[in-house]
Order: sequence, then C-alpha cells, then structure tokens
Amino acid sequence: MAQTDPLMQISYPELHQFISEVFLKKGMSEAHARISADVLTTADLRGIDSHGVARLSGYLRLIDAGRINVDPNLQFERRKKTQLRLNADGAIGLVSAHLAMQECIKITHDYGTAWSGIYNSNHFGIAAHHAMLGFEHQYVGFAMTNASPLVVPANGIERMLGTNPICVAIPGKNGNSFVMDMASAAAANGKLEIAQRKNSSIPQGWAIDAQGNPSEDPNVLSHKGALLPLGSDAEHGFHKGYALGAWVDIFSAVLTGASWGPWAPPFVSFLNPLTNAPGKGLGHFVGCWDLDGFNDVDTAQDELDAWMVRFKTSQATQGHTVLIPGEPELLTHAQRLKNGIPINTVIAEEIRNISKELNVSL
Amino acid sequence: MAQTDPLMQISYPELHQFISEVFLKKGMSEAHARISADVLTTADLRGIDSHGVARLSGYLRLIDAGRINVDPNLQFERRKKTQLRLNADGAIGLVSAHLAMQECIKITHDYGTAWSGIYNSNHFGIAAHHAMLGFEHQYVGFAMTNASPLVVPANGIERMLGTNPICVAIPGKNGNSFVMDMASAAAANGKLEIAQRKNSSIPQGWAIDAQGNPSEDPNVLSHKGALLPLGSDAEHGFHKGYALGAWVDIFSAVLTGASWGPWAPPFVSFLNPLTNAPGKGLGHFVGCWDLDGFNDVDTAQDELDAWMVRFKTSQATQGHTVLIPGEPELLTHAQRLKNGIPINTVIAEEIRNISKELNVSL
Repeated sequence: MAQTDPLMQISYPELHQFISEVFLKKGMSEAHARISADVLTTADLRGIDSHGVARLSGYLRLIDAGRINVDPNLQFERRKKTQLRLNADGAIGLVSAHLAMQECIKITHDYGTAWSGIYNSNHFGIAAHHAMLGFEHQYVGFAMTNASPLVVPANGIERMLGTNPICVAIPGKNGNSFVMDMASAAAANGKLEIAQRKNSSIPQGWAIDAQGNPSEDPNVLSHKGALLPLGSDAEHGFHKGYALGAWVDIFSAVLTGASWGPWAPPFVSFLNPLTNAPGKGLGHFVGCWDLDGFNDVDTAQDELDAWMVRFKTSQATQGHTVLIPGEPELLTHAQRLKNGIPINTVIAEEIRNISKELNVSL
Repeated sequence: MAQTDPLMQISYPELHQFISEVFLKKGMSEAHARISADVLTTADLRGIDSHGVARLSGYLRLIDAGRINVDPNLQFERRKKTQLRLNADGAIGLVSAHLAMQECIKITHDYGTAWSGIYNSNHFGIAAHHAMLGFEHQYVGFAMTNASPLVVPANGIERMLGTNPICVAIPGKNGNSFVMDMASAAAANGKLEIAQRKNSSIPQGWAIDAQGNPSEDPNVLSHKGALLPLGSDAEHGFHKGYALGAWVDIFSAVLTGASWGPWAPPFVSFLNPLTNAPGKGLGHFVGCWDLDGFNDVDTAQDELDAWMVRFKTSQATQGHTVLIPGEPELLTHAQRLKNGIPINTVIAEEIRNISKELNVSL
C-alpha cells in the first residue's frame, strides 16, 4: 500500500520503541516484543507499508480476541538433521517465523542448509525480514506462508488460497542483495484498497465477482468476489500463479499440520476461523542455504554483482529502467532510516489511539 | 507443444530403446544413453511433447557440433554436508541433472535434505523428471535450469533470461502427486510455434517486437522480438515473472559458475554461444527434502490427499474443473504407457531419418 497524505514522520528508533512497548503492555516477553517490532519496522523501512505498523491494530485485536497467544510455549521437533517442525502454540507469526529461521541458521553452520515448517501460528508479517536474517553469515534465505483465502485456483470461483507469498533473499557485496518477495496473486489486496480510496475501477485480470465473471469493482471482495492468481487468465498462464500459491499452501500448512486452503484463519478479528479446520492456525516454511555451498562465497558474490550490473544497464522501454528485485526496497530503507518513516493520516490516528489506550508514549 | 496430425504411434519400450541406441551410437556409455532415454521418454509419456523425442535431433546436432561431450568426466565437489557442486564437463544435461539428483537423494537419506548446483552442462530436458526421482523414497524434489535468452526483464527490451522453469514435485499416496513444472515466461516458445503452424496471431501479453512494442506476430522471435515474463505487463505483475526467472538464473548459473543471462548458450546448434561468457555452459539447481522431515510421512500424505480432494471438488467456472498441478500429465502418462506415444508428421520424419542415418531400427 503506497503512502498517501503523510501526516506524521517518525524516526525508526522511536517507531521501534513504540511498537515494542505496545506488545510488552499486551503481555509479551521483552524478547518477543523486540522481535515483533523488528519485523514490523523492517516492513516500514523497506516501504512495504501494508505490512508494517499499519498492521499493529490488527495484531492487537487478535490478541484481545484470544487468537494470538502472547506467552506461547514454542516447541521445536528436530525431525531430521536439517529439518525442523515448530509448534508455535498460537504465537504471533512475527516471532515464530523469526525464531524458526534463527534455528535454521544455527543448523546451517554445521550442515550447509536447514529448513523449518511451522504450524499453529499467525500472520508472520513481511517474508523478507525472515529470509534476510542469515545475511550476516552470507546465507541465502527462503520464506513462505499461507494466508486468509482470497484467491481462486485456475478455473475456480471459490476462494481457496491466500495471496501466499514466496521470498528468496540472496546477500550480495557492499550491502547489495537480490530479494524476491512476491504474492502469488495477480494483484494483492492492498492494490484494491488504493483503488477504493481513489474511487477508481481496477484493471481486468485482478479479480472476479461471486459468479466468476471479470470484475472492475475495487470493492468486489466485499461482495464475495475473489482475486485471480498471477497470470490472470488461461491465455496468460494463471495456472502458474495457482501452482505457486498451491505450493506455498502445501509446504506451509498441508505438510506441517496447519490449516490450509479455505480453512486458513483470517487476519481480521471480526471474522472467525471456519470450524472443522484440518489443522492448527496458519503455517509457514522457512530455511536457508549457505552461499558458500554453491561456490566459493567471494566468487559467487562477485558474479552476482556482475549479474546485477548487466541487468541494470540492459536496454529498457522508454522512460523506464530495469530494476533488480528488492532494489527499490533497499533504496527506501536507506532513505527512511535517515529521514524517518512517513505515516498516513488513518494509521497515525490509529496509533495515537493505541498510545492513549495503553499509555505508551509516541 | 500439442500433437497435431499424429502419423505414428510408438510404444514406450520401443521409443526408449530407439533413443537409447541412438545415443549409444553417438558414443555415450550405456548408462548415460539409458538415462537420456529415460528423461526424454518421461516427457513424451507425460504429454510434454516439446521436451521429448522431438528434441532428439537438436541434441544430436549439438553432439556433432562438439558442444555436448558424450564422454564427460563428471566431478562432484562436496562443498558442505548437504551442498554439492557438479562440474558436468559439457555433458548432456539430461544426464548431469539426473546424476546430481541421485547424489542428493543419497545424502538426503542421512541428513533430510541435499542440494546440487551444476555448471558446464547442457539442456536438461523436462525438469519434472529430475524432481520426481526421489518419489520412491517419499522425497519432495526441486529442479530449475537456466536456458537460452528469449525473455525480457520487467520494463526491459533485451533478451536477458530463458523461459527458466521451476519444478516442485511432491509424492502423494496411491501414485498421486503434486507436480508444478512451470516456465517463468507468460507463454513458452512452443505456444508461438503452434500459432505459426496455424498461421494465427498470438494474444497480446506474450511477446514484444525489437522496439519493445506489443506484438501479435507468432514469428516475432525471428525478427529480434522477445517473450514477456509471467504477468505480461506492469499492471498484472510482470515484475513477479521476471523475479522468478532471475531467481532461476542466479541459482542455476550465477552462483554455480555457469553462463548466465544473455550468455546462456543457445540450444540450437546453428547459433554459437556468445564470446566473453562469464561462466561455463548451462547451469541447473536440483535438490530434495524428505517428506518425513515436515511431519510423519503418513499424516503428511493423508493431508495432501485431503487437500487434493478439496481443491478438485471446489466450484469452477462454467465448463471447467479445478485441476491439481501435474494432474493432466499423470493421466496422459497412464494413457500413453498403455496405448503408445503419438508422434506427429514432422518428428516422425525426423526420427526416421535418424534411424536410417545411424542404422538404428525404429
């Protein structure tokens, strides 16, 4: 969600402290509150405003509704030397995915790779945060999560999948990186929300109505419509976007013991999870590869650098340049770390209310 | 490529023996010839006709041109306990990817996962063959490869990436499976070839001309045009298709030491690889996870079964049903194993010529 009408500009340390104290007040441990603040501010710093402090009130409502456990007993099961399974005990996903990735990083020191499925969890925030955790060790990170059902399968009209993101993060030299962090839908919900605020129609290929017809109504999701998978239609390969989303659902939830497909619990507290769920909570899948396992790490990163230069300088259409996946986010990160994070009117009011209610200074 | 005008129907064992003997005649070892025949016939059995015996003449021309080494010295480097790097020494990719996957399977017995980058290789055929190799051990397989540059980056007009496929294969119960095997372009070249034969135009969103304008000409690739990434345009998320293709290029080639991006060697023997290549040959990346590392394997497969049933019976648009990725290929496999493999006129003539030339009975 792009920022519009920024009212408030807040520095990264201030925002981090605010979020951290809010979660502390809600009963989280200091460690969990700090991690939660890390994940949300990573999103705000990178300009992924839909997944940062804008989500804070949503997490708080889930805590109030008893659907996020602020004092979870996280239980790792070491199923293979390089494969873990984590019962998150209803934890906030921000914490469970972060801790699972940290375990994977430790195991990767010894084995070169490690993986963790996570079940009985909740929304894990921005996938890139978790995937980038091993950058200091020159580890390639991988993260995916299932999510509230909004997307139809290819040829389907039922909401069966979330916008199920896949993230691959590769550390380069001099702070450069390749970070693919993409939803498997043609357009994520945030883009429809922008159209709603502008009162404009949405392009064909993003959504269908309840009968399965193409829709240009930005409010179509409120009328039982659904999002389309990446590819948008049969002619343009929407079976591929569907396959990607299905892969995420299976790895994150079907194989780990979380609730999958139409049963994936909704993020919003006013919608109750469906009954007869096949598993527990949301599911994630994270892991890493040691870059030095592909090739000598210096050689690999020099080559990645050369790749980035070649792609960035390749010929582009009029008025455009070719970007490296994650490049805009890296630039925004540097800028916002220096100049502060813009908060739009709606979110500014939300967090002022939270500040008052919980007596946490902002 | 869909079959049109089937002239010849050939049984799986006959086709396998023919291909195997052809490669033997060309100087391959019995083991390598058998593996090569395994991979090509897997494609034909699954109905992926563009990657089966239809490619045989192309491989032979690369052998004749000295660009495929029929007697390679494959050298595995065990860089980490679970990470390998394979110098394929110019081998046919059908063999190098297969053997790398077999090494990964052995290591997975002990560690739960294993991965191999492969460089100095050639076209590896159908990704699904390699990814499915661990099915008998209930291992999830993963395979990707870079390929001859035909696809532009998002906003680009230079051919920088191949149609770079990603395959994830998950073994289910009773012979069922989930097999996502997808190119990262909106439409692969085979679809343009079908339009050429029909003399029909192609939909907007598949390709651009040399100036970067949308093109509906099925012959646009012969006029310096290029394919578009999955998503087709900015509005429909072509930065996602680009990111997927770039991920494949980086994992398969940039990190392993193969030639990447515009330097990826062409499949056709009449085009020479570019000079000043940054690496050696084509690159692949394969690996596997033990399904039992996610959860008890019986539980995981029961859940996968339930997932498939729920998706297959979900509501579809008029005249359609929702399919499981890999389901059509599984049905075609069963059918063609029983009834034989249809070979179209053009390919039938090609293989008859090969049969005569090499004195291998067909």
